[in-house]
Amino acid sequence: MADHSLPVLRWADPPDGPMLVLLDQRRLPTAEVEVVCTDVPGLVAAIQSLAVRGAPLLGIAGAYGIALAAARGYDVGEAARSLTAARPTAVNLAYGVERAVAAHRAVGGDGPAAAAAALAEARALHREDAVASDRMAELGLELLGELLPGGGYRLLTHCNTGALVSGGHGTAFAVVRAAHRAGELRRLWVDETRPLLQGARLTAWEAAREEMSYAVLADAAAGSLFAAGEVDAVLIGADRISADGSVANKVGSYPLAVLARHHGVPFVVVAPVSTVDAEAADAGAIPIEQRPGHEVTDIGPGVPVAPVGAQAYNPAFDVTPAELVTAIVTERGVVAPVNGGNLTAVCSGSPGVGAGKGDGMMKA
Amino acid sequence: MADHSLPVLRWADPPDGPMLVLLDQRRLPTAEVEVVCTDVPGLVAAIQSLAVRGAPLLGIAGAYGIALAAARGYDVGEAARSLTAARPTAVNLAYGVERAVAAHRAVGGDGPAAAAAALAEARALHREDAVASDRMAELGLELLGELLPGGGYRLLTHCNTGALVSGGHGTAFAVVRAAHRAGELRRLWVDETRPLLQGARLTAWEAAREEMSYAVLADAAAGSLFAAGEVDAVLIGADRISADGSVANKVGSYPLAVLARHHGVPFVVVAPVSTVDAEAADAGAIPIEQRPGHEVTDIGPGVPVAPVGAQAYNPAFDVTPAELVTAIVTERGVVAPVNGGNLTAVCSGSPGVGAGKGDGMMKA
Repeated sequence: MADHSLPVLRWADPPDGPMLVLLDQRRLPTAEVEVVCTDVPGLVAAIQSLAVRGAPLLGIAGAYGIALAAARGYDVGEAARSLTAARPTAVNLAYGVERAVAAHRAVGGDGPAAAAAALAEARALHREDAVASDRMAELGLELLGELLPGGGYRLLTHCNTGALVSGGHGTAFAVVRAAHRAGELRRLWVDETRPLLQGARLTAWEAAREEMSYAVLADAAAGSLFAAGEVDAVLIGADRISADGSVANKVGSYPLAVLARHHGVPFVVVAPVSTVDAEAADAGAIPIEQRPGHEVTDIGPGVPVAPVGAQAYNPAFDVTPAELVTAIVTERGVVAPVNGGNLTAVCSGSPGVGAGKGDGMMKA
Repeated sequence: MADHSLPVLRWADPPDGPMLVLLDQRRLPTAEVEVVCTDVPGLVAAIQSLAVRGAPLLGIAGAYGIALAAARGYDVGEAARSLTAARPTAVNLAYGVERAVAAHRAVGGDGPAAAAAALAEARALHREDAVASDRMAELGLELLGELLPGGGYRLLTHCNTGALVSGGHGTAFAVVRAAHRAGELRRLWVDETRPLLQGARLTAWEAAREEMSYAVLADAAAGSLFAAGEVDAVLIGADRISADGSVANKVGSYPLAVLARHHGVPFVVVAPVSTVDAEAADAGAIPIEQRPGHEVTDIGPGVPVAPVGAQAYNPAFDVTPAELVTAIVTERGVVAPVNGGNLTAVCSGSPGVGAGKGDGMMKA
């Protein structure tokens, strides 16, 4: 299995002006091609069509988008509004945009210095994400050791949470990768993740590159794996986490949480602190993006399966309430929502706050 | 939406010999074409590739397969063995084969009279299935009225259980259709049913023909419908039911049962008595067919999505244990496995036995 030679996201500055260059994730794993964004509408289109996707990477892309607008002399406030609105659920996008806007504003004016500050902030966020990813991998592996003292983990994941969504090795997949490198991954179960198949296309690709033992399955086949005792833990990422620890993630995560509870299996979320929306008190405060029905009624671009005119229900995400979430692994520590662990401390506090090794955590 | 003009299954007897002609369900709804089977290996291939599918229809096809073998002078015992082995989970297939074999054997010899007896039995089974379907629709509608006194049902279904699987209007879909015709169907939620998309392709097609209000969804999106209180009951068919009321059905049924339990929603199975395997005591005694991985790693014939060489886990069915099954509607009455209702009485008894309106049934 060939490694991908193109970076997931890169800033380029040729003579005709700066640009953001993205690995087109819609085309993977069949083709490795890049999408070039020279303005904010182009980036918004890339975000909405999922050429670039994944919560942490959306934050990084949003910050670079502001840098792009500033460097090209577009209105930064307008760029911020349209980027933030591009996808409503992933709060990291707004977070990245806001950080670059704040850096731009701190310098003041619309000149090169302000643009350079926005770009520097985007680059800082990009680097920070890699560091956060490594820290989450470390804390997540430690958590698995505590939850599953027998080792030899059989982990189930949904959607795609590896290097393709991150400045580093990702979120949930970074933990899976750490377990694999520690010789403790017995099997990775990869939900294909309908309708857009991020699991079958992207996670399987990343698992193959890492030479993991893995298998792809139809999302609904996960139930029989739980019933057969073949799942030791579920590991997923997140697109927005409310203060109480309720988790919006790719649609299909919530049924896994219910199955995990039914079978007494830990349900673990791995996400950077930037995914937490401290203003959202609970699950009800998280907006859910509805996507076009043709993603369901067609199976792949231009391949219809349902009858002409079929209606579809196609939410991009679902919300798992805090009481079903065993643990949330952030780069600042681990919180146990199922035991009432709140994310506020982790968000506002110093590294290590809310490390969540308190009472009852491992009994969840 | 055009009606389909071709019958789902028909016996033909042109001058060059009898044949079984099947509507090719792999091609629906895009094309209506027939598959002609002139011998048992051809029929076995049609069964294994799902050109003909659905538990009750497999029973009918199996009986006609014996009639075909007898009429064409092939060995009936060998035909019975290869037809029964074609798909291991759906017990109706074995049931249909056995009935035609018994009729053939009762006449004795290999002559035209024995062949005619096998054909008459296949035709009888075909007609009986239509009658059973009507009775299940009637009993199922009555049950819905008791479970959901408010009316205006929002029903979720999985896979395909309508006229395409039956001599009549089907199993679960026959109940949905009855509710629709009674003006009580507010919405049918149609799981697309990966990997082979029987929901998106076939159930959506049948729902559209009936002019129901329906929407297709990715299987894993069902969770958010439950969470939003948008599902009043789950209605599915079955491929094999053990004596205690555990139900093997299309993979993805079990997660729906767990979600239904979590949300206090009735989980109702509709299946003829021929689906009950009285020799299987419980869930553990039901064999589960594993199908080729390419059904998952490719999305549609010849359209790969997962990386080359990807491994897959692809069970065709899962088993819902009796304690999660609110009710099983058969043509002989309704049983409540969740309350300890056993299928043995319904199988052996006269019509009406085990009607299951006893204590606690509607509180399930």
